[in-house]
Amino acid sequence: MTAESEILSELEAIRLIDPHTHINPYAPASRTLADILGYHYYTELTHSAGLERERIEQQGLDPKEKVGRLVPWLHTIENTAQYSWLLEMCRVFFDFDDERITESNWEALYDLSAAKMQSDDWESTVLDVSGLDQVYLTNDFDDALTDFDTEFYVPCLRTDDLVFHFEKPDTRERLSSATEITVHNAETMRQALGSLFDHFTSNNARACAISLPPDFSPAPVTDPRADTVLQKVANGSTLDTGERLDLRSFVFWALAEQCSERHLPFDLMIGVNRRVYEGGVVQGQDLYDKRVSLIQYRQLFNAFPNVTFPTSVLSETSGQELVSYAWIFPNVVPHGHWWYSNIPVFIEQDCRARLQAVPQTKQVGYYSDMYKLEFALPKFAMYRRILARVLAADFVEDRG
Amino acid sequence: MTAESEILSELEAIRLIDPHTHINPYAPASRTLADILGYHYYTELTHSAGLERERIEQQGLDPKEKVGRLVPWLHTIENTAQYSWLLEMCRVFFDFDDERITESNWEALYDLSAAKMQSDDWESTVLDVSGLDQVYLTNDFDDALTDFDTEFYVPCLRTDDLVFHFEKPDTRERLSSATEITVHNAETMRQALGSLFDHFTSNNARACAISLPPDFSPAPVTDPRADTVLQKVANGSTLDTGERLDLRSFVFWALAEQCSERHLPFDLMIGVNRRVYEGGVVQGQDLYDKRVSLIQYRQLFNAFPNVTFPTSVLSETSGQELVSYAWIFPNVVPHGHWWYSNIPVFIEQDCRARLQAVPQTKQVGYYSDMYKLEFALPKFAMYRRILARVLAADFVEDRG
Amino acid sequence: MTAESEILSELEAIRLIDPHTHINPYAPASRTLADILGYHYYTELTHSAGLERERIEQQGLDPKEKVGRLVPWLHTIENTAQYSWLLEMCRVFFDFDDERITESNWEALYDLSAAKMQSDDWESTVLDVSGLDQVYLTNDFDDALTDFDTEFYVPCLRTDDLVFHFEKPDTRERLSSATEITVHNAETMRQALGSLFDHFTSNNARACAISLPPDFSPAPVTDPRADTVLQKVANGSTLDTGERLDLRSFVFWALAEQCSERHLPFDLMIGVNRRVYEGGVVQGQDLYDKRVSLIQYRQLFNAFPNVTFPTSVLSETSGQELVSYAWIFPNVVPHGHWWYSNIPVFIEQDCRARLQAVPQTKQVGYYSDMYKLEFALPKFAMYRRILARVLAADFVEDRG
Repeated sequence: MTAESEILSELEAIRLIDPHTHINPYAPASRTLADILGYHYYTELTHSAGLERERIEQQGLDPKEKVGRLVPWLHTIENTAQYSWLLEMCRVFFDFDDERITESNWEALYDLSAAKMQSDDWESTVLDVSGLDQVYLTNDFDDALTDFDTEFYVPCLRTDDLVFHFEKPDTRERLSSATEITVHNAETMRQALGSLFDHFTSNNARACAISLPPDFSPAPVTDPRADTVLQKVANGSTLDTGERLDLRSFVFWALAEQCSERHLPFDLMIGVNRRVYEGGVVQGQDLYDKRVSLIQYRQLFNAFPNVTFPTSVLSETSGQELVSYAWIFPNVVPHGHWWYSNIPVFIEQDCRARLQAVPQTKQVGYYSDMYKLEFALPKFAMYRRILARVLAADFVEDRG
Repeated sequence: MTAESEILSELEAIRLIDPHTHINPYAPASRTLADILGYHYYTELTHSAGLERERIEQQGLDPKEKVGRLVPWLHTIENTAQYSWLLEMCRVFFDFDDERITESNWEALYDLSAAKMQSDDWESTVLDVSGLDQVYLTNDFDDALTDFDTEFYVPCLRTDDLVFHFEKPDTRERLSSATEITVHNAETMRQALGSLFDHFTSNNARACAISLPPDFSPAPVTDPRADTVLQKVANGSTLDTGERLDLRSFVFWALAEQCSERHLPFDLMIGVNRRVYEGGVVQGQDLYDKRVSLIQYRQLFNAFPNVTFPTSVLSETSGQELVSYAWIFPNVVPHGHWWYSNIPVFIEQDCRARLQAVPQTKQVGYYSDMYKLEFALPKFAMYRRILARVLAADFVEDRG
Repeated sequence: MTAESEILSELEAIRLIDPHTHINPYAPASRTLADILGYHYYTELTHSAGLERERIEQQGLDPKEKVGRLVPWLHTIENTAQYSWLLEMCRVFFDFDDERITESNWEALYDLSAAKMQSDDWESTVLDVSGLDQVYLTNDFDDALTDFDTEFYVPCLRTDDLVFHFEKPDTRERLSSATEITVHNAETMRQALGSLFDHFTSNNARACAISLPPDFSPAPVTDPRADTVLQKVANGSTLDTGERLDLRSFVFWALAEQCSERHLPFDLMIGVNRRVYEGGVVQGQDLYDKRVSLIQYRQLFNAFPNVTFPTSVLSETSGQELVSYAWIFPNVVPHGHWWYSNIPVFIEQDCRARLQAVPQTKQVGYYSDMYKLEFALPKFAMYRRILARVLAADFVEDRG
């Protein structure tokens, strides 16, 4: 038995906590293959290869018909890591054993898998096979958090809307309806956020989370300035660029203050530009500008030494900065392998760097980012294989 | 037989289209070793190691004397990928079987190779051994495109001069002489470009191409603004910085419009700064600023959904962006491994990322960028070895 | 015997010159384990893992007590490259053969190692075992350079204070006291620097060196402008931002002029931001902004063709730029693997790129950056293992 396979066996025996997902706790598992192939990875890759967006996003499209439209395009992405996840799910969960999904075998697969997915114990079957002990959610700030097991499906307060879309009337209405507080100055903003944090922490929330554009560079904003800007927003006035930046910094900083008071980690996902490709499929429109540095968070990391910041970066060119900042700042923790960096070549590079230079007690290995539970299995399996290879090569062979 | 060598055999059986070269179709093959050692890779590397530029760029230098001056410096670059290409060419084409080219063996090599290269069938011999089916050229916009086989040596319209040097009288004279149109506003610019595209597409041109500096960020320019700026240029006035940027954006955008109308791909080579080292040898003066992002082309990619953009990047730090943009935008295609990224360590990293995350139907593997035909052989061989290793490791071993 | 182990044996036979260290020539070797564990790599990593700074930086802390406070935290960094250096030093120098340093075995190790380190021949023992032939120092500009063997401990003139802290009265006082020249204009600055260079070169100095922040972009400054700015500084006036930048550029340029006159290399260490984490341990407060490019040194490299610039970069994302600039500019030389890039994953990537594309006569392989002599052994050993692997994989296997 090689060192690599020995390590892999040990890794496979570990039960999992998935610290970042987009699971809907009311419908965590898939019901048909359309739920799986509807994951944006497949729609965006096949669209990139030529499939028209309208064909798969047509209003009221039947799930089986949707899969039937996607399948003829799957041959274009057979090389991708994402396709390998699909095949692995079909093999493990649906007894599929062909080499590829084609126009001639997909219907049988669809029908067989639908029968399995629609059985009553499907969710527990998936969880059991996948070895999951906890699944962290991504909850809107006004999520009721009722009627699901928050010990297993752990709530996390997602705050993008509050920081980046507070000027939108809809966001403000949702906030005042969730908190019964109308925000018009710094003090009422803090009260409203406090009320959200009360709600979330009393429902077992374990993190506050946000995704951030590459040009965001937060700094403290004084209360008088925040009063002015928030009053303008409350009046329905349009902010100028400087005011908008200060609004965003103020809300972001106030969230960090709440995290500090509640001893809650603040998950940062740094580097995404939204709606770059406006003609793209749902969730397949975002890209990035790699010209971003963690130096933009210098003030934040210094200002909140008792807040842990599990940090993800979108660009692989930020991987070493994340390692170096986690090496120096006690409160910076490398967190998973996000999105465009979640393919083997970049995971492997990042794993090696983190294992070589960040204290082992500070590493949060992997999260699936999944929308449906079935994805945990192939994604964690991919991660384990890479980790086993890295550990064998860098830590067994190199150190003799 | 290992998976890697099995894959390599299959790759070696594939005939080649070389989609970007600097071949002169009237003199495609080398006549002496000086043509090969005159490739800028060798002059710039030996100059970097200490050889004075004047020694090898002396007016009227005899080819054999030029090689004689270069050879004593070759030992300084024996470690480089470029030297390995040289050795492979000498072995395959000239029956050379020493381990290195030295002051004591070069003359025999020179004479033997000259005899071979000056035989009548040398060009066809090289093409035959190299397995080339088509060679794409890089043609000046006023190239006559006559007297060569455009089915084999495929014309491509290179447009750097039009976008970046239109203020130079020489460029404008060449344009008006090629098109019989004097450009003085947006309309006449479109007519002149249309005339060039007519000429090129009627001569089997298969791409428009351009290299772009890292700070270029094209955006649409209105016709009235373009009229103003182009009139100024026509009058011989000097443009201010804003006008110059708008001129460049306007011409660039008008080229994309032509590509859209003619269904021609627009090859983008992103990231080069010209004449950074002014004391350098010919073609050995350019470098780059890695602080460039494909987000600068966001508007372009959205504005021209039916233009394919085969895109090359100069800095390896842009490799993941290229993969991500090709994953999301249907019209972005990763294209070859350009210049400073065309060495095994970066090719390997880029190959892995592209194969793991871009639809296989959208990948353009490799181009040689060669000035003389002999270079296709060692450069494609290098690429095949890397590709075989990547495919074996990531796709056979990892997926079982 | 594999190619890799054969190459490793050859590398191990080579005696070493360490071209960049922070060795104190009056106390080059450690006296206790506290000197070794006091190296900032261990204090910053354990602090990052949770050890309070005050516990290890307490005034008058006894060396053994300091080690006793660090040891319980070592388990948090057992995965790191830095820990592997520690273990290797303990094994080779102190006959340690446990798998880890723990609360139950550290005292025996401490006592045994102290006995060895306090023997009279400890320094020569370490040098002998390590194979060091020369150790380059980092000397303050006002260092007397007396009473040590400058043939072995080679002085280097470190100039950060002169360029970046000349506005501080302390720096100016040190300069005038070292040179007996009071700087108040361009001319007196040149005289003072000339005097420092006289002193250093007459004491066998072999390099001028400086570390540079990511936003530094030097350009020549005219003498009249420098006169104005230096007069303001001499008067004790505060400079505005433009004046400060010009002051820094002027002094930096004047240093390059001195290097040119004295035929002294100018070591550039590009990319560090100082005191980013102000609550960090000594020397564990600096980080970086990866958004830096060597294009910022374009004017410098062109202006001083006869000055060799051995260049280090902090961010791995600058690694390819360094290779490309060294490939083109005769006077740019890649120098070591600096700080946050000095871990195997980045060394390996950089080694491959440098070996594939920079003339072999221009490469300066490795420096230890050490504070105490014991570190040369594990750090060069790490480098040799990586180099052997890279040479075997890229140069033996790939070229057959």
